[in-house]
Amino acid sequence: MTNTYFPLDPTTVIDYVRTRPELMDIFRAGEALESVEVGDGNLNLVFKVWAAADAERTVVVKQALPYVRLVGESWKLPTERARIEAQALAVQARLCPEHTVHVYYFDPVMFCTVMRNLTRHVIMRRGLMEGITYPKFGQHIGTFMGRTLAGTSDLVLDYKTKKEQVARFINPELCKISEDLVFTEPYRYTERNLFHKELEPQVVALQADADLRVEVAQMKAQFMTHAQALLHGDLHTGSIMINQDETICIDPEFAFYGPIGFDVGAVIANLFLSYASHEVRTKDAAARAAFRSYLTDTVIELWAVFAREFAALAWANADSIDLPTAYRDRYLLQLLQDTAGFAACKIMRRVIGLAGVADIRGIEDVHERAIAGSLALNMAIPLIKGRRDVRTIADVVALATAARVTYPFGS
Amino acid sequence: MTNTYFPLDPTTVIDYVRTRPELMDIFRAGEALESVEVGDGNLNLVFKVWAAADAERTVVVKQALPYVRLVGESWKLPTERARIEAQALAVQARLCPEHTVHVYYFDPVMFCTVMRNLTRHVIMRRGLMEGITYPKFGQHIGTFMGRTLAGTSDLVLDYKTKKEQVARFINPELCKISEDLVFTEPYRYTERNLFHKELEPQVVALQADADLRVEVAQMKAQFMTHAQALLHGDLHTGSIMINQDETICIDPEFAFYGPIGFDVGAVIANLFLSYASHEVRTKDAAARAAFRSYLTDTVIELWAVFAREFAALAWANADSIDLPTAYRDRYLLQLLQDTAGFAACKIMRRVIGLAGVADIRGIEDVHERAIAGSLALNMAIPLIKGRRDVRTIADVVALATAARVTYPFGS
Repeated sequence: MTNTYFPLDPTTVIDYVRTRPELMDIFRAGEALESVEVGDGNLNLVFKVWAAADAERTVVVKQALPYVRLVGESWKLPTERARIEAQALAVQARLCPEHTVHVYYFDPVMFCTVMRNLTRHVIMRRGLMEGITYPKFGQHIGTFMGRTLAGTSDLVLDYKTKKEQVARFINPELCKISEDLVFTEPYRYTERNLFHKELEPQVVALQADADLRVEVAQMKAQFMTHAQALLHGDLHTGSIMINQDETICIDPEFAFYGPIGFDVGAVIANLFLSYASHEVRTKDAAARAAFRSYLTDTVIELWAVFAREFAALAWANADSIDLPTAYRDRYLLQLLQDTAGFAACKIMRRVIGLAGVADIRGIEDVHERAIAGSLALNMAIPLIKGRRDVRTIADVVALATAARVTYPFGS
Repeated sequence: MTNTYFPLDPTTVIDYVRTRPELMDIFRAGEALESVEVGDGNLNLVFKVWAAADAERTVVVKQALPYVRLVGESWKLPTERARIEAQALAVQARLCPEHTVHVYYFDPVMFCTVMRNLTRHVIMRRGLMEGITYPKFGQHIGTFMGRTLAGTSDLVLDYKTKKEQVARFINPELCKISEDLVFTEPYRYTERNLFHKELEPQVVALQADADLRVEVAQMKAQFMTHAQALLHGDLHTGSIMINQDETICIDPEFAFYGPIGFDVGAVIANLFLSYASHEVRTKDAAARAAFRSYLTDTVIELWAVFAREFAALAWANADSIDLPTAYRDRYLLQLLQDTAGFAACKIMRRVIGLAGVADIRGIEDVHERAIAGSLALNMAIPLIKGRRDVRTIADVVALATAARVTYPFGS
């Protein structure tokens, strides 16, 4: 065990895990281990380590870097976020172990989390890009969000625990990334925005839309002030490991007490981004329609499951039992409207902002990429502008799916 | 200086202040001092101490008790709140020194704050009960709220400072008092409620109003989750020392990061409680009308000054300069609507709940007391139910002043 922080590499990570008592059931004393660095995120080193004699005996080591990898060492980030991630994983594991990655240990000196290597799962985004459906996803993610979000809110926690948790999960640097990249930069000219030239007329028009900027500023204010529940904070399809049977959420380093709709909106945004991308990714019209039906059915199912699981926890305690039914209905309707607004921001930032998604940015042909990006932006705008009129999740789906491609412009 | 906490009394408080270096300019070595305990609040001991040779050389010593004085030693309260009060006073003094009581020092062992003795001021509530007008109050309190609330919000503080302040001012026990006494108990049967039998039919009807309870529950949720700014947290007319020239806010031990409308609503609620009380306190119709005009003019002025001072600070920084004007207008409109809702809750709790106000509970004749209480409740209900339709502060005043006395009931 080390006394000071240093960044691991594929060699040193082997020495690092070899002697840990928490891993005694996995690795045997003195046996050969192998490793590879697989991080494709922006903020961390991620290693897979396995026994040379048996690749099934394996762990993932995630180490926080003190800067944003995507930008370079100039953008400092406190390794403190690794502590927040480990504590958030502990909370999520308590409330919903079946959909939270198992952690063997967290090392507060090396800012390393050592966790289960999900060898039978893929990153959900990759699967969706290939048009693979995951029939249990709506059920699973709805359960995860309903339990973790209700279970960390004032509706379940006592007054004191909740407020102490708010303080414990203050996460200024990571929140600042979202404040800038989700709610600020995409809606004005900044050098860090990264969209392709073909989309420029649509992006310029969006940035000139004062009504839209009012709505986005309201979502930003809510993100910054509304401490409803402990959010995952970055619940996109790249933070979800999946197969036909299991759904496992990883990487809650952006966790903080924020508005519940931000997490739910993130999941829905990423399903809608996939929906937009298959405008060009799936050429066959019937196959495209079928995959899109899967996506929209999943949006509807995940909300229904979320609302059911949330309500089951939220309205069970003594204080809320006394609340009128109309209050409960309004509470969930407000969450739905928030969800639509946050989903819109998450879609727009992925098309216009610094950090894109492979669903769309990974489309090789620039015209096809512009088509998918155009559709995604046109799905987002009615979601945020029309969110106050939404009454059901079907309304949300209808708003988004009514959108059409407007690229090439002026055609 | 002491090493352990003990409750002061009029004798020991003299020894306590005599040797403090922070008071060297006030008290001379070895001179005779006198003191009296004057606390009429619920949570603290308050002493006035002065030089026997010159009563102008004087300080106030406020010491936090570890229990709620009103209820007795069974209701424990952390003396930690004295630290929060001292830190809140320091923030308010930085942002608006002219309306914040001057603190000589805070003693974290004895949980004592030693501050200016406002010998030329009265507790504002006492003055209002006598029908005294304070023409500068609207200007003063609007300035205090505009500067302290904007100046501690995300609109002025950088992302990191604001979030660290949220954590620093976590104040669970004192918030819990407000959650229970302002937002929960008055709207259901509880033994701690304290209203007079004459009002019972109106209170029972109010508690049976499910629509009202939905609205109150929404204000409570906002109180518990919406970390907009560092509130005073208890800004009633008993926390304001006043004369014809000066307005000084004291006692922010309930300070925490909460919704801005809670502070503004508290001030307006107490002016409206005074308005209701003068239904019976001032018998002469012309004098009553004149005093009420003062109160409603003051409500209108304090909002105008608050909005102007708030805007001057809030929209001056680089990030918000880029916000559309429509966003700023909506932000202030939302604050106004929140203010109406919180004012209503503050009025109802003072009539129905455990802690009343002398304006109304001090009325000796039970029928007159019921008349004033009836009017206050009837002012509150349209404020909270109609808050979403309010567009200007004049609308708020119109909603409240349209109310009529409905006691005796069935008449």
